[in-house]
Amino acid sequence: MSQGKTPRVVAGENIGQVDATKMPRYGGISTFALLPQLAEVTQADVAIVGIPFDSGVSYRPGARFGPSHVREASRLLRPYNPATGVSPFASQQVVDAGDFAVNPFNIEEAIASIEKDHRALSEKAKRVVTIGGDHTITLPILRSLHKQHGPISVIHFDAHLDTWDSYFGADYTHGTTFRRASEEGLLDGEGCMHIGIRGPLYSAKDLVDDKAVGFQIFSSIEFQELGVQEAIKKMIARVSNRPVYISIDIDVLDPAHAPGTGTPEAGGLTSRELLAVIRATAGLNIIGADVVEVAPAYDFAQITGIAASHVLYELICALSPK
Amino acid sequence: MSQGKTPRVVAGENIGQVDATKMPRYGGISTFALLPQLAEVTQADVAIVGIPFDSGVSYRPGARFGPSHVREASRLLRPYNPATGVSPFASQQVVDAGDFAVNPFNIEEAIASIEKDHRALSEKAKRVVTIGGDHTITLPILRSLHKQHGPISVIHFDAHLDTWDSYFGADYTHGTTFRRASEEGLLDGEGCMHIGIRGPLYSAKDLVDDKAVGFQIFSSIEFQELGVQEAIKKMIARVSNRPVYISIDIDVLDPAHAPGTGTPEAGGLTSRELLAVIRATAGLNIIGADVVEVAPAYDFAQITGIAASHVLYELICALSPK
Amino acid sequence: MSQGKTPRVVAGENIGQVDATKMPRYGGISTFALLPQLAEVTQADVAIVGIPFDSGVSYRPGARFGPSHVREASRLLRPYNPATGVSPFASQQVVDAGDFAVNPFNIEEAIASIEKDHRALSEKAKRVVTIGGDHTITLPILRSLHKQHGPISVIHFDAHLDTWDSYFGADYTHGTTFRRASEEGLLDGEGCMHIGIRGPLYSAKDLVDDKAVGFQIFSSIEFQELGVQEAIKKMIARVSNRPVYISIDIDVLDPAHAPGTGTPEAGGLTSRELLAVIRATAGLNIIGADVVEVAPAYDFAQITGIAASHVLYELICALSPK
Amino acid sequence: MSQGKTPRVVAGENIGQVDATKMPRYGGISTFALLPQLAEVTQADVAIVGIPFDSGVSYRPGARFGPSHVREASRLLRPYNPATGVSPFASQQVVDAGDFAVNPFNIEEAIASIEKDHRALSEKAKRVVTIGGDHTITLPILRSLHKQHGPISVIHFDAHLDTWDSYFGADYTHGTTFRRASEEGLLDGEGCMHIGIRGPLYSAKDLVDDKAVGFQIFSSIEFQELGVQEAIKKMIARVSNRPVYISIDIDVLDPAHAPGTGTPEAGGLTSRELLAVIRATAGLNIIGADVVEVAPAYDFAQITGIAASHVLYELICALSPK
Amino acid sequence: MSQGKTPRVVAGENIGQVDATKMPRYGGISTFALLPQLAEVTQADVAIVGIPFDSGVSYRPGARFGPSHVREASRLLRPYNPATGVSPFASQQVVDAGDFAVNPFNIEEAIASIEKDHRALSEKAKRVVTIGGDHTITLPILRSLHKQHGPISVIHFDAHLDTWDSYFGADYTHGTTFRRASEEGLLDGEGCMHIGIRGPLYSAKDLVDDKAVGFQIFSSIEFQELGVQEAIKKMIARVSNRPVYISIDIDVLDPAHAPGTGTPEAGGLTSRELLAVIRATAGLNIIGADVVEVAPAYDFAQITGIAASHVLYELICALSPK
Amino acid sequence: MSQGKTPRVVAGENIGQVDATKMPRYGGISTFALLPQLAEVTQADVAIVGIPFDSGVSYRPGARFGPSHVREASRLLRPYNPATGVSPFASQQVVDAGDFAVNPFNIEEAIASIEKDHRALSEKAKRVVTIGGDHTITLPILRSLHKQHGPISVIHFDAHLDTWDSYFGADYTHGTTFRRASEEGLLDGEGCMHIGIRGPLYSAKDLVDDKAVGFQIFSSIEFQELGVQEAIKKMIARVSNRPVYISIDIDVLDPAHAPGTGTPEAGGLTSRELLAVIRATAGLNIIGADVVEVAPAYDFAQITGIAASHVLYELICALSPK
Repeated sequence: MSQGKTPRVVAGENIGQVDATKMPRYGGISTFALLPQLAEVTQADVAIVGIPFDSGVSYRPGARFGPSHVREASRLLRPYNPATGVSPFASQQVVDAGDFAVNPFNIEEAIASIEKDHRALSEKAKRVVTIGGDHTITLPILRSLHKQHGPISVIHFDAHLDTWDSYFGADYTHGTTFRRASEEGLLDGEGCMHIGIRGPLYSAKDLVDDKAVGFQIFSSIEFQELGVQEAIKKMIARVSNRPVYISIDIDVLDPAHAPGTGTPEAGGLTSRELLAVIRATAGLNIIGADVVEVAPAYDFAQITGIAASHVLYELICALSPK
Repeated sequence: MSQGKTPRVVAGENIGQVDATKMPRYGGISTFALLPQLAEVTQADVAIVGIPFDSGVSYRPGARFGPSHVREASRLLRPYNPATGVSPFASQQVVDAGDFAVNPFNIEEAIASIEKDHRALSEKAKRVVTIGGDHTITLPILRSLHKQHGPISVIHFDAHLDTWDSYFGADYTHGTTFRRASEEGLLDGEGCMHIGIRGPLYSAKDLVDDKAVGFQIFSSIEFQELGVQEAIKKMIARVSNRPVYISIDIDVLDPAHAPGTGTPEAGGLTSRELLAVIRATAGLNIIGADVVEVAPAYDFAQITGIAASHVLYELICALSPK
Repeated sequence: MSQGKTPRVVAGENIGQVDATKMPRYGGISTFALLPQLAEVTQADVAIVGIPFDSGVSYRPGARFGPSHVREASRLLRPYNPATGVSPFASQQVVDAGDFAVNPFNIEEAIASIEKDHRALSEKAKRVVTIGGDHTITLPILRSLHKQHGPISVIHFDAHLDTWDSYFGADYTHGTTFRRASEEGLLDGEGCMHIGIRGPLYSAKDLVDDKAVGFQIFSSIEFQELGVQEAIKKMIARVSNRPVYISIDIDVLDPAHAPGTGTPEAGGLTSRELLAVIRATAGLNIIGADVVEVAPAYDFAQITGIAASHVLYELICALSPK
Repeated sequence: MSQGKTPRVVAGENIGQVDATKMPRYGGISTFALLPQLAEVTQADVAIVGIPFDSGVSYRPGARFGPSHVREASRLLRPYNPATGVSPFASQQVVDAGDFAVNPFNIEEAIASIEKDHRALSEKAKRVVTIGGDHTITLPILRSLHKQHGPISVIHFDAHLDTWDSYFGADYTHGTTFRRASEEGLLDGEGCMHIGIRGPLYSAKDLVDDKAVGFQIFSSIEFQELGVQEAIKKMIARVSNRPVYISIDIDVLDPAHAPGTGTPEAGGLTSRELLAVIRATAGLNIIGADVVEVAPAYDFAQITGIAASHVLYELICALSPK
Repeated sequence: MSQGKTPRVVAGENIGQVDATKMPRYGGISTFALLPQLAEVTQADVAIVGIPFDSGVSYRPGARFGPSHVREASRLLRPYNPATGVSPFASQQVVDAGDFAVNPFNIEEAIASIEKDHRALSEKAKRVVTIGGDHTITLPILRSLHKQHGPISVIHFDAHLDTWDSYFGADYTHGTTFRRASEEGLLDGEGCMHIGIRGPLYSAKDLVDDKAVGFQIFSSIEFQELGVQEAIKKMIARVSNRPVYISIDIDVLDPAHAPGTGTPEAGGLTSRELLAVIRATAGLNIIGADVVEVAPAYDFAQITGIAASHVLYELICALSPK
Repeated sequence: MSQGKTPRVVAGENIGQVDATKMPRYGGISTFALLPQLAEVTQADVAIVGIPFDSGVSYRPGARFGPSHVREASRLLRPYNPATGVSPFASQQVVDAGDFAVNPFNIEEAIASIEKDHRALSEKAKRVVTIGGDHTITLPILRSLHKQHGPISVIHFDAHLDTWDSYFGADYTHGTTFRRASEEGLLDGEGCMHIGIRGPLYSAKDLVDDKAVGFQIFSSIEFQELGVQEAIKKMIARVSNRPVYISIDIDVLDPAHAPGTGTPEAGGLTSRELLAVIRATAGLNIIGADVVEVAPAYDFAQITGIAASHVLYELICALSPK
């Protein structure tokens, strides 16, 4: 390891994780799931990239440390998913592309540079999966993907709608992402869905506005009443074969399952429920995904980081060819 | 703000929260949900008051810091409840009435002063909702309410029965509240109910005594087996149109959802289950309510404080005229 | 107390917990559930013993502090179980047998001494219930019990299979326990079952190997889909009247319910689910049990310790004569 | 209390803290030191105001929660300072002026509004003492004070120089405050001093630039070698009778004494050293002061909050007439 | 160990700690320093006893868990003190006498029972060293010792004077101990001393009253200015050969060194300073000692518990014959 | 960054840290001080390497996570040291060489592989500075260095002697390192020194044995009495121009300054004292160095990690050519 030769699991042409039989999982430089960095491979199917930006938050900041925290919490991920029968790091080349360099002091410049960096990375990797950072970062990603794919269906896991208009005169914050995206024509208004919504809003108009943007809602309360399978059924019906982007605000989980986040709301999903729904996206036409709003300063014993890393793992599995 | 003019949301005659479009939610003096203090209004429908008293606890103390912790954790509460369509701070005047001054060294004096202060506050506000403090505080509240309403139906959310007789020679502790209340004739023996009970007891006689006091039980195990809707159905059948007091010991939640409490027991409710049941009390004849036993020194990232503040929010919504 | 005379609850010939009406639960030397130590009784039905050993772990260490942490977290346990109607400390003599002295620097010597100590303790107590330590300790316990009972049916609650072959050349670690046990003929291949399994594996072959060892699986996902009662039904069908050992890795719980453990995986059981299944083992022919992998340095407010102590309580109840 | 009549200590015309003989220190709405709010008095000598702004930080954010955290940690402050013989709340009217409402998404707008709010508050209170927020907030305060007092001598307690030029194209951040202040002519180049500086810099030029701005340095290492009295002597010699502003970044303390901050550096001052130097400013011509960079998410058991509140107390004492 | 035979270090007739070469320090039931319990020996020179009582506190409660926390944090203490050349467990019989059973709901009854229990224990052990609990417990100990020794010289390490008169009508709290002791004639007014005093008081009269009680003060500020040796010199001059009781409130330490306490004040002693002064009491005529106000819910990684256990160790060494 | 082109500060031929003007310090993959990895350079003057091994600990484990924790806590280190005028990353090529892969289940195999890996790394880098891991790892490093340099003078910062003989039959643990090293002839008996020693020992013989090994002691108490400069003077006199290895157990710091460690002892050094002494090693003939025993599970807000990273920074500076 110290000689620069990291022992790795290799499957065909794909370079996988650090070989856990040669290096204990707690050893070595932290990359996501101990996967190779982008510079170590010649091509990539899936690139995991961090966007350490949290200047768009309206309450607890700290998601700028999300990427390094989730990487550290992902060391235990193993290469075979028994729930789906997929070996995500063998069937495709997955890499850690490091972090985008983002200006913390200028939101609009940040958004512009994220879009540019995302487009550049998309030329090196077929699919990009992002670790936030706050939810502001999803807007430039959607812009980048829209150029390639046209109107996008978004499955949005969150306690909040994120379709607010503006806040303190700022048009671009973590609460306005999907409003802006809709206004810019990035979204497919027939194929968007919020999952896990709950908690108080500013007014009844929030729901009206949200509907206008084009979102259906499957709320956290409905998980209680109707169950996971119903959520999956509605999600698949809504999305159909549209190009779909999956955006997961970790606060969709209950604070018990994700204390380390910026705008926690009681009454959320369990990690088991969330993983089940993500797993069911495997057949969809996924064009990208993110997990955002992990704020490590509020995490304990990596409860949140582990949940986020498992969610990312299921996303990578969902992207995998069978 | 510093000029003494707090920007506030106003609905008709009702003064609401600090205006979140002018002051970020993390700014300003901590009142419950950033609502006005009692002195800032001319009349109140609902007064939220803290009772920082924990000298009645038998295990982990610290609930004396409950009121300030729950206030701080309530900053994110917003004015519209999409689950019920209620705008609780617009449809009624809700205020933060500060804390009662309670003697920590003399339980009986404390109980007497709480009753007196509760009665005085009841003259200024139609309904009083209390943040504990330990469960001892519910007895003087019931005394005060009984004077006004006669025998009271109690819906009691808790891991524990709180109908024990005495402890170390003390008749008034957080475990004896409902026994004393029953003996004093404060309770309607046909309309009381424990919800969420679980964990070991001292003896089988505890259940016999408890039944004699007049409580039905819907246990935490029954939530697993029968579900939330059954709990709601039984609760409503039990209470009917009686005047009802809702007393929520936060330890009714599983320690995962409420680590910050004094006598935690494994196997409890999720916050989603609890909120659903509270929400269903909306049609009842609620004469008062409390959330007790939040012990902040054992909380992390406000998991418990947030759960408590959402529970209080649903209680306030349940008190709201449509 | 300071005079060496601890006030105790006594039921017939059985010496029970410290009398909570005379000594507050937070007072006195920490024994499990404030039960007497082995030297204080003349015979024992159930001995609780700690095995402070964690040199077999592959990720986060710290389970060596598990026994003292679980003891401290067990102070609130009370003598009557309303869920089953059992008074476990009155119907049988339960004692705290302290900890085995185990060498932290030599796994094989540790395993040998644990087996020897377990056998010696089994001569003093009809049943031994163990607090780990890591899962390595279950192998020598099975060896000891096999000498007495022959092939053993194991109900294994865990996120992981623990039927791996070897790791870093070590045959005996916390991940190889049941593979070794099977190879040594200790297990009844028709009666073993994993409950709560989830998360990624090293390869599909892990499942093949595991099946060969003789385990059926009821996964965490199945809890979501089929429910607790189905888990219980399958467990009882599998075990029937075979001599059964119950081994509970606390990581079977979701990290929200058990952050304090060494190899946490998202998507696990709730403590309510786990307790329900344990409770249902009451009619089985239980020959021993353990709760392992509590790593206190990662626990908060005893969330994990309390869950573990309640699990132990239900195990002791399951061992109780009616 | 709940009746809106808070029991208060009164000295002459000055309204002091909540009367601790009538309300326990943990009770009541959190204001700094349980002092009255601005609206409760007719004039003020000293106004304590929070500026919940942290969008200028370059590393760990979270100081936006500083004001509410320091208020909560200040409840134990008592009215008489035996070290100096001052009764700071009796000899002058001290009030809590709440928080300025600051835009988190636009640094320049934030700076402008802080200056405006500070000027407005300065018309209501002779001296303003600020709780940050990050160090960016000191620039608009200096602008406001300069209008009234002309060039200002600054005693700056910090691990860092805060005289950097720009960062990510941003001229206004928590690291550029005194560079900008100097360029704008706000500082008296003969009377400024850094105290407690330590840790690595970007280059030797940092020191050259810093000297050009007009700062002398008394480093943390010099505290070790020369002692507190020498620091005091140099500070008083430097400042003389100039109008002086005292700006205390809590990271001047060692991380052991102030873990809850954004850019911690090992090898810092003890709280005892810091308090001694602050105490010695009593004879100076203090025109304002702040304590910044308290980031509560990284604090534990209020270690940092208590240190900050004691520092504020000594500042208020230093402002007091004898 | 599980057989009831704990391997112990024995020196002459004195039974010492669990033998660390046979049982790792983290193993076995928690007694102070892994010493034998009272019932295991025939006579005792020094008895360590816990008093889990905190109903006398005026701010953060939780010291009721102090004894079990300090026991757990004392596992690393070893048998030879190189700073003084003493082997405290070999030169004298030291035992853990468990905890006194104290009523949490009635302060006066608690005080009466502590005095009675202390007297009873004093008949079994030459010297009693106590782990609090809050500072209220020192009064009944002084009563008990006064019966045996007459007027007592007290060396009192604390941030606070603890000579207040009454609080909320309560004469007996953790802040009135030495006032009451003086009024009852228990103290030698020529031989008492506070060490480490700091922080704000209620009024200048506090110091006048305190002086009248008979205390000299060596403040925390004087540690900074005059040093440890001067503190020792003044302490020895003050006490001379009087019978002396050493009472250590752990809040004498700075919050950095003792976060886990109830009324923390910035600017305190380091643990190195405190240990040096305690060590210097070795030649005094010590008749008893206590360490109080350890509140574990506010401790982290046992920082406070370890400091307390080392302080207790030095006290036991100071009691040792050479 | 995501394109694999990390923006770096370059000085002559030396590649330095990630350019903080282009990538915020919290962004990017965690390497020590954000320095390049070994594979990114053609030659190295100083290699920082992690040894994630803690199977040699006798109390709290967890130092296996030390390397990743210290890397994460080192992000704020900047390139110029004003205390010594050194630019350590410009004047020499410093790299992060990742972690050695070490077997956690076999101490002797671990020691053998560490020695081999250290020798191999020494061929690629002139000096190797190690992040532990527990203190066991220093033995194989000394073996490797002895082959190159002959008998080695060791400056050993620690609360403990680490010259014990064996423990539980194990010759190689974190407490026996320097005994073994001496027996193997690796040490220069005239040039070794312990700095910061404190706390209880097993017996007076420990000191006799230690002296025989060849160590002088400058204790933590002597820091209080004689000061930092005296420590430095004695250290330099002892070492003179011998080849010297600097081994720093982070527990030399007081638990307030380093809670995150395995065998904490009260009364330790401050981080300011430690940094001062390390800084003074600059003129010595340093052949290698390590910082060991950082156990992140017990750290809070990176207090310990930051102290360790600053100590490493001063070591790297001490290795730098002027």
